[in-house]
Amino acid sequence: MTSSFPTEAGFAEAALTEDGFLGGRVRLLQPRHGYRAATDPVFLAAAVPARAGESVLDLGCGAGAALFCLGVRVPGLRLAGLEQQPGYAALARRNAVLNGLPAEILAGDVAAPPAALRARSFDHVLSNPPFFAAGSGTAAADAGRARAHGEGPAGLDAFIDLGLRRLRPGGSLTLIHRTERLGDILAALAGRAGDIRVLPLAPRAGRPAGRVIVRARKGRATPLTLLPPLPVHAGARHAADAPDYSDAAAAVLARGAALALGG
Amino acid sequence: MTSSFPTEAGFAEAALTEDGFLGGRVRLLQPRHGYRAATDPVFLAAAVPARAGESVLDLGCGAGAALFCLGVRVPGLRLAGLEQQPGYAALARRNAVLNGLPAEILAGDVAAPPAALRARSFDHVLSNPPFFAAGSGTAAADAGRARAHGEGPAGLDAFIDLGLRRLRPGGSLTLIHRTERLGDILAALAGRAGDIRVLPLAPRAGRPAGRVIVRARKGRATPLTLLPPLPVHAGARHAADAPDYSDAAAAVLARGAALALGG
Repeated sequence: MTSSFPTEAGFAEAALTEDGFLGGRVRLLQPRHGYRAATDPVFLAAAVPARAGESVLDLGCGAGAALFCLGVRVPGLRLAGLEQQPGYAALARRNAVLNGLPAEILAGDVAAPPAALRARSFDHVLSNPPFFAAGSGTAAADAGRARAHGEGPAGLDAFIDLGLRRLRPGGSLTLIHRTERLGDILAALAGRAGDIRVLPLAPRAGRPAGRVIVRARKGRATPLTLLPPLPVHAGARHAADAPDYSDAAAAVLARGAALALGG
Repeated sequence: MTSSFPTEAGFAEAALTEDGFLGGRVRLLQPRHGYRAATDPVFLAAAVPARAGESVLDLGCGAGAALFCLGVRVPGLRLAGLEQQPGYAALARRNAVLNGLPAEILAGDVAAPPAALRARSFDHVLSNPPFFAAGSGTAAADAGRARAHGEGPAGLDAFIDLGLRRLRPGGSLTLIHRTERLGDILAALAGRAGDIRVLPLAPRAGRPAGRVIVRARKGRATPLTLLPPLPVHAGARHAADAPDYSDAAAAVLARGAALALGG
């Protein structure tokens, strides 16, 4: 019997799928069950203001969806990822090869980062942290997702704290998270980062935001900006028989456009 | 010579104007110079979920714009205001009479509230706190505004702290403020209030929000909601020769509609 759950040793081949992102420009091996990348890491990668030659660190990189979407959009980056779960870290290394993008994938916990990371600084840090406070999760998918990101010891604060520590002064930290954690994110950034730009992602125009992308600059004092929301889907209701992404979302998801957060 | 600046004794008649709000349903005496109510207190009042028979406290009520807009929209409220500057407190008492709305206006500082307030609790608290951190103000209008609200000793945290203290459990606290203070507001509410609803007010559709209305319920744990922004003005540019409020803003400002924040 083939296990479909991640193990310390990695994933069985039969438990993997290969999926395309950015209109097929990014290929990603990921487990058939457990945490699977959907649109969040793609939006996250689109919001990172990285330029060729700069260094980037993804905290809790999973199989590397955000890291490789960013690497394909902006050639010439130095890519690094930290991933607590060895099975996902191994997949991220395979996905680096699959996409022809050299990336340094470190196995380790955000709450106790490996020594190899501690002395380094990056131009940009990105993260799609686990979605629930430690101990409060219910859904199995969330639990798999949380394990993939090191939840357990590392909560949202640990991701933000490590991200800020590993940034050069003025470097950017970009997060995507459930809107309900916005207060926690802003609290963790307070006094340590500024020029905060909040981009709400609403399922449709006129709806409350389900996700927020929050981007900040280490050590800056520029005031917060709350940007107009990006509607993910077009129209008022879900079209079950066809993709119904809004033009702005399709530009990011299918064509690899950047998200302009200004600043 | 008639002074046009607030004094301990109040304002000279020649230094006052009488202005209409909610399409003329609210009349407000206010100083010709210094802090003058515009649209912020009207939007604030529209967001308070008060019902007939309930009690309401406005922290830093100034001449009473928000308090009386709320009192006219929702008849049968028990209205109270706290105002640090005696000149504005006296005006608020006159404006209560002018609008036929009994209101208890207390003179005192938010950072050191009068004993008459300390033992009481309210169903709803609202506030339009001063717009700059203590000591950082520059514009004269802001300085007058800040004095009117007790700035000097009382900063944003003091308004939120007193508001939460004076609420019954489950009571609502509603604030309007510059968007850049959103993080400070959420930090001050953390662990003490929930069901936070953030309504961004954008100058026009597609622009970053200039103001946020934040409403919270004391002692609740319901997650935060980030609502779609309300565009204050219609069209892409300012029409200099005509009012250009959006339909949603005009409903509130001219016709006294409530703002639906849900929950």
